[in-house]
Amino acid sequence: MKTVAVRNIERADIEVVSAMGELGVATVHEALGRTGLLKPYIRPIYKGARIGGNAVTVMAQPGDNWMIHVAIELCQPGDILVVACTTDNTDGMFGDLLATSAKARGVRGLIIDAGCRDVRDLEEMDFPVWSRAISSKGTVKNTLGAVNVPVVCAGQLINPGDVVVADDDGVVVVPRKQAKQVLDAGVARENLEEEKRLKLASGVLGIDLYNMRPRLAECGFEYVETLAELEA
Amino acid sequence: MKTVAVRNIERADIEVVSAMGELGVATVHEALGRTGLLKPYIRPIYKGARIGGNAVTVMAQPGDNWMIHVAIELCQPGDILVVACTTDNTDGMFGDLLATSAKARGVRGLIIDAGCRDVRDLEEMDFPVWSRAISSKGTVKNTLGAVNVPVVCAGQLINPGDVVVADDDGVVVVPRKQAKQVLDAGVARENLEEEKRLKLASGVLGIDLYNMRPRLAECGFEYVETLAELEA
Amino acid sequence: MKTVAVRNIERADIEVVSAMGELGVATVHEALGRTGLLKPYIRPIYKGARIGGNAVTVMAQPGDNWMIHVAIELCQPGDILVVACTTDNTDGMFGDLLATSAKARGVRGLIIDAGCRDVRDLEEMDFPVWSRAISSKGTVKNTLGAVNVPVVCAGQLINPGDVVVADDDGVVVVPRKQAKQVLDAGVARENLEEEKRLKLASGVLGIDLYNMRPRLAECGFEYVETLAELEA
Amino acid sequence: MKTVAVRNIERADIEVVSAMGELGVATVHEALGRTGLLKPYIRPIYKGARIGGNAVTVMAQPGDNWMIHVAIELCQPGDILVVACTTDNTDGMFGDLLATSAKARGVRGLIIDAGCRDVRDLEEMDFPVWSRAISSKGTVKNTLGAVNVPVVCAGQLINPGDVVVADDDGVVVVPRKQAKQVLDAGVARENLEEEKRLKLASGVLGIDLYNMRPRLAECGFEYVETLAELEA
Amino acid sequence: MKTVAVRNIERADIEVVSAMGELGVATVHEALGRTGLLKPYIRPIYKGARIGGNAVTVMAQPGDNWMIHVAIELCQPGDILVVACTTDNTDGMFGDLLATSAKARGVRGLIIDAGCRDVRDLEEMDFPVWSRAISSKGTVKNTLGAVNVPVVCAGQLINPGDVVVADDDGVVVVPRKQAKQVLDAGVARENLEEEKRLKLASGVLGIDLYNMRPRLAECGFEYVETLAELEA
Amino acid sequence: MKTVAVRNIERADIEVVSAMGELGVATVHEALGRTGLLKPYIRPIYKGARIGGNAVTVMAQPGDNWMIHVAIELCQPGDILVVACTTDNTDGMFGDLLATSAKARGVRGLIIDAGCRDVRDLEEMDFPVWSRAISSKGTVKNTLGAVNVPVVCAGQLINPGDVVVADDDGVVVVPRKQAKQVLDAGVARENLEEEKRLKLASGVLGIDLYNMRPRLAECGFEYVETLAELEA
Repeated sequence: MKTVAVRNIERADIEVVSAMGELGVATVHEALGRTGLLKPYIRPIYKGARIGGNAVTVMAQPGDNWMIHVAIELCQPGDILVVACTTDNTDGMFGDLLATSAKARGVRGLIIDAGCRDVRDLEEMDFPVWSRAISSKGTVKNTLGAVNVPVVCAGQLINPGDVVVADDDGVVVVPRKQAKQVLDAGVARENLEEEKRLKLASGVLGIDLYNMRPRLAECGFEYVETLAELEA
Repeated sequence: MKTVAVRNIERADIEVVSAMGELGVATVHEALGRTGLLKPYIRPIYKGARIGGNAVTVMAQPGDNWMIHVAIELCQPGDILVVACTTDNTDGMFGDLLATSAKARGVRGLIIDAGCRDVRDLEEMDFPVWSRAISSKGTVKNTLGAVNVPVVCAGQLINPGDVVVADDDGVVVVPRKQAKQVLDAGVARENLEEEKRLKLASGVLGIDLYNMRPRLAECGFEYVETLAELEA
Repeated sequence: MKTVAVRNIERADIEVVSAMGELGVATVHEALGRTGLLKPYIRPIYKGARIGGNAVTVMAQPGDNWMIHVAIELCQPGDILVVACTTDNTDGMFGDLLATSAKARGVRGLIIDAGCRDVRDLEEMDFPVWSRAISSKGTVKNTLGAVNVPVVCAGQLINPGDVVVADDDGVVVVPRKQAKQVLDAGVARENLEEEKRLKLASGVLGIDLYNMRPRLAECGFEYVETLAELEA
Repeated sequence: MKTVAVRNIERADIEVVSAMGELGVATVHEALGRTGLLKPYIRPIYKGARIGGNAVTVMAQPGDNWMIHVAIELCQPGDILVVACTTDNTDGMFGDLLATSAKARGVRGLIIDAGCRDVRDLEEMDFPVWSRAISSKGTVKNTLGAVNVPVVCAGQLINPGDVVVADDDGVVVVPRKQAKQVLDAGVARENLEEEKRLKLASGVLGIDLYNMRPRLAECGFEYVETLAELEA
Repeated sequence: MKTVAVRNIERADIEVVSAMGELGVATVHEALGRTGLLKPYIRPIYKGARIGGNAVTVMAQPGDNWMIHVAIELCQPGDILVVACTTDNTDGMFGDLLATSAKARGVRGLIIDAGCRDVRDLEEMDFPVWSRAISSKGTVKNTLGAVNVPVVCAGQLINPGDVVVADDDGVVVVPRKQAKQVLDAGVARENLEEEKRLKLASGVLGIDLYNMRPRLAECGFEYVETLAELEA
Repeated sequence: MKTVAVRNIERADIEVVSAMGELGVATVHEALGRTGLLKPYIRPIYKGARIGGNAVTVMAQPGDNWMIHVAIELCQPGDILVVACTTDNTDGMFGDLLATSAKARGVRGLIIDAGCRDVRDLEEMDFPVWSRAISSKGTVKNTLGAVNVPVVCAGQLINPGDVVVADDDGVVVVPRKQAKQVLDAGVARENLEEEKRLKLASGVLGIDLYNMRPRLAECGFEYVETLAELEA
């Protein structure tokens, strides 16, 4: 690994990014063609946060948070820190001091494929974190990694400057260049869903609304009246 | 697998079922002779819900929620959707649209051995879900499964029409025909526990209340005064 | 295993122990030289509790909570029950009745490398538990274990009378004889952290505050202006 | 749980059962309509064994192998012991003494959703075991379970007398009444596969052999010449 | 996801690729600067194989092996199939028929972040596979994915045409353009290791060979004569 | 953690230790009163090795094998290296060069709660390893740990000089002072088992050999003739 930090990255338009945060993860993921999700073991440390931001990426070593300190200098308002690790690790690489520093630079939150600590303080500070684990395990600053290089975090490729959206449903990443187009698709989708929601609430069935009956029949799906009939 | 849906299932009496919901999982599990629990990896997506209902069962394919749409048509007020999957899968098979539809039919909640999404919306709608994962991963409607057939969900056999009880402690299933008898046993147990609780709160020890001292001695259990004595 | 209970154990000073509880897990763990943490799979059953206490230890058998009943008699106000198991197990060994009894003896909470149930009741009682799982699975009282012997719980050696601190970040154990010294180190550390927090909040960077730039350079860390430059 | 043993169970024809063993797991699973597989965490303790037999089922308690002793008396030549457990457990419930006894009664092997030990001896004895773990952890004989009742083992419902087939690919169970029909379907499938194997070995492509091109096109699948073209 | 197959990919020189296979995974991973490894849950289905080849990549859907059939047509002698999946899945997507077809096209092996079956046959055919699981679970051909696009497989980004090396230690991927340079570095490293091996075998200590004593002292590492001294 | 190495440790008699190795893990574990086992995720990298030796213990940091180099200097013929890690980690901390060095000093094998690489070479060298994972992931030498201090390895407390026995069934540790007594108990047990084995092989049932019928009846265990009878 080249042990470097890249100072300048291209970011997506901050208004687009913020608007994507409001759409939420499920909608953005669908609008992106059902891709971009991080694995579901990444969970928020508290409920209710929903953010969108530009990724500043970190490749850290297990048990070592040196590179996060380096990364914070390179953050701008509207950024989200994304920390990957060279190997599976749950140590508490991030706590209230780093959050204080990140917040002072306008960072909106942290996605970390490792552990996080001081979770009560982080909630009080309103600094949201999505992590693999909650752990107090202290870390060192001994081994170099990299900042603002492409990383794989929780099974997903993330480039610096990509758009990250996170909420109670998880985390999704959108390639920077597709940001506007995905936002538009997401807004359109949300409008459509509202219509469907009203119909479904009124009792219309999904198999009718989505016209599933013909295809069920075509595929050979059958209805029987009772279980006894099936076993006969 | 026979790719079918069974239209008519026998259900337990709705008042019995609702009363079992009030008893809660731990009591019902004990009243059933310590059986019927789903594995503890099935967790509620939010705290505080406690429900009892009749199972409408679904066997789904990984990454595919087609059969849930089929199942909703066959639900009645008081039912609980129980979704098993042919293989381990965490995709977000269920979200707010399906919940809207289920709620419109009087479904009380969902047990799913897979993932769930839109969890913030589901909590606002007060539609409780117990799932293996929270994940936004979108699903398709391409491969047939079955509805209202016996399924194994989270390690437990569940027949359509069985009684399902779920709360913060997990999920338990009671064979339909034993519902009334288990309810009675559960109520009796709860009354007994109230008595015990008062005694224990007053300082009576469990080893006295349950008369454990003779059996401890009989089995060869010893008391020593200090650890040093033990190591000697 | 010797199947015994040790009646008398040495405990740390209760005021020291309570003060350590207030410091919290991350600070105590650092003050102890970054050791003593239980594995992060041990999680609180509800948020917000923070306790310190003297360990009364239990070695239990899988699916069997007999020894917990034995242990409660040996507890004093200010104690924390610490339950290890001879093999990995998630059964619900502890519920509201045991909590009622423990509370009547002044026990401050439970750490259990197994399952716990009645979690809603436990939260209402304000009896905090850190466990490996939430599970209603009922247990028996058939096989002997031991009480107040050294145990390995969630990867950590715990002797009876050691100090246990637990909060939302996890659980840490401090050898009894080091309690006062660790408390002092923790308080000193907390004061230092407050200073750092103010500087970081004002925008001072961690890499400056901790003087990391020289060592980064010495280790060969480089800054490049753009990703393109790096790939060239 | 009713703590009983059922003495007499109906078994499938032993010649059918043995022939199914020769077909192997993948073929039998397909012949059964892609159902019946145990979860893949159940693995053989050594390579190369392939067996078919009638299930004698055991529901054991964690850390307790009492019921396996009870079950062996009820075994006949051609049987396979199937051990489920009331909760997840990896203790070494089965070793060379139990295998000696099982072998003396003509038992063909063991499927156990728990641990196994003495694996070197078992291989020397040619007594195959499929287990969740290899562990020396000793067990007790203190808590009752049941023998020859329906069990869920590794996620699959198994009734006493069902046909179990196991090899290096895993374990599959076939309902007793379908044994002959599944054997016939499996043999037919194997013959078909032989034809296909020859064609594929000669270089015929699967997408041609299975005529996949029209459906790929119909579903909207596209070919592009280069990755650059795709990214454009 | 764009549901496409890319017909033409650039590959690394086949002699370079084959030579990298002979170096083995640990050496190539070190020569690449300690990057490129797939997560260690990917394991060989049998021991002793060691291969290098050019990646033909597949993005498959859970429980669906349609895209593997599509990919085989695009393979050349010296290729290695690399199958990622849109979500965690262990189904048996690959067996002896697909292996027969792949072998007929000169494919050297398969890396699959899912399951594999017919493992005994695959070993007899000498067609090596590295997989996440061994499972007979049958798959369908219903949902589109993609072929020869960049994929993340077991936590590692793999582009079509990258060099893959696999042996008993796991799997590593090398970006195509770095192939020759990594081969040279690996050969140099191997020569160096041979020297070291001879010295270490003769009894020279690593802490002397690598001159670790000064840095140990500088970091504050101490030697004490006895444990008692340490505890004093 | 005190970052030290203890030069002199007390070891158990080498002949006792070697004899315990011949008894094997299951027998030694039973002779020790069913304690001392490491968790079963620790597995041998190849089959057939069976060793006993005195523990030289290492506490390593994640991704860092510096302390293993330090430990080898302190090893004597008949020792077994036991490596614990401050946090869960699977990196390949040990390979053929370290094995060459360890072998030159008479070390009999390695137990490591982390990863191991070069497994093919290690088998050819006949240097057995029991590890948590096989992984090529390279490690650094940057962060201090400790050598010959008490460690918790795979859930078990191990003191330097304790006796370690390892074979295909796993790993067990015996406190040094109990070595001779456990050896004697193990030999006695083995003789008893031989008798039992002969009886069981001749068809005597375990429930008769161990006289289980009276206690089964006393506990309320029942036999029924058919499943139908049970369900009635």
